[in-house]
Amino acid sequence: MDSSGVKALIFDVFGTVVDWRTSITRQGQEFGKANGLKADWEAFADSWRSKYRPYMDKVRSGELPWTNLDALHRMALEDVLGEFEIHGLSEETKAEFNLAWHRLDGWPDSAPGLWRLKRRFILAPMSNGNVALMTNMGKYAGLPWDCILGAELARHYKPDPESYQTAVDLLGLKPHQVMMVAAHQGDLLSAQKVGLKSAFVPRPMERGPNNKPDPTPDPSFDVVASNFVDLADQLES
Amino acid sequence: MDSSGVKALIFDVFGTVVDWRTSITRQGQEFGKANGLKADWEAFADSWRSKYRPYMDKVRSGELPWTNLDALHRMALEDVLGEFEIHGLSEETKAEFNLAWHRLDGWPDSAPGLWRLKRRFILAPMSNGNVALMTNMGKYAGLPWDCILGAELARHYKPDPESYQTAVDLLGLKPHQVMMVAAHQGDLLSAQKVGLKSAFVPRPMERGPNNKPDPTPDPSFDVVASNFVDLADQLES
Repeated sequence: MDSSGVKALIFDVFGTVVDWRTSITRQGQEFGKANGLKADWEAFADSWRSKYRPYMDKVRSGELPWTNLDALHRMALEDVLGEFEIHGLSEETKAEFNLAWHRLDGWPDSAPGLWRLKRRFILAPMSNGNVALMTNMGKYAGLPWDCILGAELARHYKPDPESYQTAVDLLGLKPHQVMMVAAHQGDLLSAQKVGLKSAFVPRPMERGPNNKPDPTPDPSFDVVASNFVDLADQLES
Repeated sequence: MDSSGVKALIFDVFGTVVDWRTSITRQGQEFGKANGLKADWEAFADSWRSKYRPYMDKVRSGELPWTNLDALHRMALEDVLGEFEIHGLSEETKAEFNLAWHRLDGWPDSAPGLWRLKRRFILAPMSNGNVALMTNMGKYAGLPWDCILGAELARHYKPDPESYQTAVDLLGLKPHQVMMVAAHQGDLLSAQKVGLKSAFVPRPMERGPNNKPDPTPDPSFDVVASNFVDLADQLES
């Protein structure tokens, strides 16, 4: 595509930039060892993640007032610990484990690709994760963001149009000057409705080897790239 | 001081991190050359900057609705052009010149000091400048921010307490875990009232050689440093 009018790339993060499943599973194993707990930590990670959308939808529907993702993760953790029959942990121990979401590793191409893209574009996360979560993760995983955008600044979770529009407004740009990058087609289709450009970067291993998503990209996407280095190649960055 | 509890440093920017006067003067000279205009561009820079506070106070008092700094700079530019009897410029030319504030150079120690401080602390601007302005300036001047905070995210200009409190909240920290760094004592005293730590870094040349501020630091400041490299030394970073 002709990307000469694009000034900023904004990224979905969980799954697109970082491998949450492997990272949460590993931290679960460490947490289990430190606290003398046994569990299927891969299943634990999947369960924790699965509660993200229903909790978020309670905020989107107005059933819950604005609540940031750290706090939603903390509520969901309580549910998952119950499911796995893990009881008696201190509040401090649970609060610290909840920060596992701040310590997720990038896919191998994420940081190298972002460093190349950064030479030409403004780069920002456009995640449902809150500012502190994204800031800490950026430092942990070496992600060279130029600024942190996302749902918390709009007080609207994706895919509400306000979430994308607020990012565009804070950048001082027009929607067509901003490209959304995501591994999730619904996220891109929602961003397109606000006028953003779209780049699809499938991450087939996000949910593990037995749960691969349909890889067929919607024909409306401006770019389809196999990873962030390929994205930099295609955007001549 | 014992800085072991400090997690984030947030910075005043205009004057503290960047040398706005030299940068605006230089861009004024270039603007004059490109448009066949003669003026005392140092006086022009001083006049433009002098209108910043009265316009901001109109927002703080409620006389103007929330208006970001790019828009206030644009209103002030109109006034300054009138004062200097510069007429007939196109809207596009004026809008482009207004972005001069996005292209300010750091003091010589700013980027090297920030890179050292970044190893240990979260670094963010806490400026009255808007997110786009700070993001573009960060890229232009090579300032390695971890996230962009500031008045626009609170919709309250400094020194309103909401401006500092919003930064602390978005970082997910307590006020005593955040240190405000500024060349302006009033900014630090206002941040202290919200519970933040304070580091004074005087910039005697901010307003030029003939307009040096009183260098005596208020005894309440936690740190007084001669520049950002000295600040990194004192914070053992």
